[in-house]
Amino acid sequence: MTGPFDTSVWRVLGNPLVSGTTEPHGRLAGETIAVKDLYAVAGFAIGAGNPQYLREAAPEPSHAAALAALVGAGASVVGIAQTDEFAYSVAGVNAHYGTAPNPRVPGGLPGGSTSGPAAALALGHASIGLGTDTAGSIRVPASYQGLWGLRSTHGAVSRAGLLPLAPSFDTVGWLTGTPELLQRVAEVGLRATASLQVEAPARFAVAVPLIFAADEGAQAAFVDGLSLLERAGVLPAPEIIEVGDLTALFAAFRTVQAGEAWSAHGAWVRAHPGALGADVAARFDAASRVTPFQMTDARASLAAHRAALDAALEGRILLLPSTSSTAPDRGASAAEVDAARAATLSMTCLAAIGGYPAVSAPLLEVAGAPLGLGLVGPRHSDLALVDVAARFAATLAA
Amino acid sequence: MTGPFDTSVWRVLGNPLVSGTTEPHGRLAGETIAVKDLYAVAGFAIGAGNPQYLREAAPEPSHAAALAALVGAGASVVGIAQTDEFAYSVAGVNAHYGTAPNPRVPGGLPGGSTSGPAAALALGHASIGLGTDTAGSIRVPASYQGLWGLRSTHGAVSRAGLLPLAPSFDTVGWLTGTPELLQRVAEVGLRATASLQVEAPARFAVAVPLIFAADEGAQAAFVDGLSLLERAGVLPAPEIIEVGDLTALFAAFRTVQAGEAWSAHGAWVRAHPGALGADVAARFDAASRVTPFQMTDARASLAAHRAALDAALEGRILLLPSTSSTAPDRGASAAEVDAARAATLSMTCLAAIGGYPAVSAPLLEVAGAPLGLGLVGPRHSDLALVDVAARFAATLAA
Repeated sequence: MTGPFDTSVWRVLGNPLVSGTTEPHGRLAGETIAVKDLYAVAGFAIGAGNPQYLREAAPEPSHAAALAALVGAGASVVGIAQTDEFAYSVAGVNAHYGTAPNPRVPGGLPGGSTSGPAAALALGHASIGLGTDTAGSIRVPASYQGLWGLRSTHGAVSRAGLLPLAPSFDTVGWLTGTPELLQRVAEVGLRATASLQVEAPARFAVAVPLIFAADEGAQAAFVDGLSLLERAGVLPAPEIIEVGDLTALFAAFRTVQAGEAWSAHGAWVRAHPGALGADVAARFDAASRVTPFQMTDARASLAAHRAALDAALEGRILLLPSTSSTAPDRGASAAEVDAARAATLSMTCLAAIGGYPAVSAPLLEVAGAPLGLGLVGPRHSDLALVDVAARFAATLAA
Repeated sequence: MTGPFDTSVWRVLGNPLVSGTTEPHGRLAGETIAVKDLYAVAGFAIGAGNPQYLREAAPEPSHAAALAALVGAGASVVGIAQTDEFAYSVAGVNAHYGTAPNPRVPGGLPGGSTSGPAAALALGHASIGLGTDTAGSIRVPASYQGLWGLRSTHGAVSRAGLLPLAPSFDTVGWLTGTPELLQRVAEVGLRATASLQVEAPARFAVAVPLIFAADEGAQAAFVDGLSLLERAGVLPAPEIIEVGDLTALFAAFRTVQAGEAWSAHGAWVRAHPGALGADVAARFDAASRVTPFQMTDARASLAAHRAALDAALEGRILLLPSTSSTAPDRGASAAEVDAARAATLSMTCLAAIGGYPAVSAPLLEVAGAPLGLGLVGPRHSDLALVDVAARFAATLAA
């Protein structure tokens, strides 16, 4: 019995699964959505990448707010796409449903946890990926698969109907194939907070540890990319800023993420021994051992880091490679995947700590494999940030 | 934008779409269902092969009775599969969603109106097709695609939650890849009427007009098949019976079917000019002109035919080719498809008129293409009829 569709990419599919509202001038009319399996789709249970969780979940009575906004603008839902279990990974590996393909890097990991929507877009099955970004789950698959991705400002888009992982950092995010569509999607998604949107700063910054966390190929591609943009006159020479000790930053972030993930799902995880894949199970096991004192310390540390980052970044857009490398090989050892994960998270967690919006623009390349250029802006500069990245892309394409 | 799945076969797909109840010893545990898009699936609208109809339909609150029985026995739903519009055809052509493939006959029509479930089974996407048979819509795709099919005794299986076409003839039917599974499925589906089940007669019959309605290749395959079964000792020499004038029989059947189809869907069809494919639109247009007097006459004629058929068949199983030919080429002209349709329906409508159960067993072949051996038995001999066909198959395989 072979399958009628790729279950490493999709859980449920329709033609369409949900029709967009038919207002003829809907801003997203004709667009098609792959919904990460963390969002409520009316009539369907949320599966969160785990078949046992799915079996016990009840059908949702209505769409998640972020989905309703897209559908209300005329986009149709193609299907519900796979995710790393509870979104608690950035590799795009799922022990139950398999690892989605990376059409841009044969044999490469897709990147997670918005793995299914990313693969769906790269395969041409949908035009909009509705995902989430807690620690990098939009930016990593975007970087690995040559897609446009936006992690929205924390709190700017309603998370009603979205399964939490770590609410202090969870954000709605979108993937598209073009900056023009990302802009339209973001405008629709951010409609409720449009009045808060701020202009993008005209100054740019880089931080040495965020470049050195990347591997040599990614470093070179990043430096070359910036040179091209500077020479083309669209990028003023970036200033070098201090962002503190990434190791300490990441440790505090990881503690708070783990503590919140355990609060959200610990009871279920404890009640279902053996239900999780080995890597996610190990992560939850570590999370179960975070103490209240550790949480208090880590939260205080993050608050201090956040204030320092706000000051260091003020008036600037931070540029960095979106990930520490291009897509790791799916045959890589657990140790290699873990190393890439830790390096990438130490780079991506900065936007999570600050609650900043972040774009991954598919403007770099290492040996034929895509790599995202990351842009991190002030809170509520989402739309302006996409605009800056789009200008970079237009310049490089010219 | 290419599709993530074959929309000529499927409308909605899941992994699974609906889980079977998890009783460990469910008789259908591990089996997977392709549901024809005429049955209520909880949470989904019925589409009936027409996208406009689908857009206006509300989600169904619960499963159709025939589906609930299979799910309750442990089978999971893979998806909702395509059908000819309103099941009002036997070709398997759909103007909106395309023509499903026939994996057994490259370039051949799939047969309808249970076209999607049949293709799904032949492609290995599901193990059970839940369909309907009004005038042959289980037996035709079974014959064209080398599948096992059972049209159940009229009224023996609840039609609650099933969109009607012509209620005097509409029956629940099933497709499978093996007789053993067809037997299990039929036992589950017929549970409510198990006490009515009768033994199969030990005598067999053929009728000359039902053989001559088939083309030469099908006639030869049928005669050869019967010879093999007779020589193997599992088939006593069939008796030749009279079934009356097929042309008159089919004309009366067609009138009543059309009148009932117009009662069921005429208002919708009239309110949606242009919404139907040309062939189905023409059929509904003709149906709209059936007069009450024609209906009365045709019903009286069918009642007389039915009594005569009961008498002629009494104590016998009627054998015939399931269809007048193997799968017509999808490039065939409308006239050629119509000719095959009329010849096949004149053969298949007999079971519909009598309300008899009918099996199509994939035991014949013409030039490498499958052709069903048809068995028509007394009302409520469904299970026994499958058993007889299974014995034939075992003998031919030995």
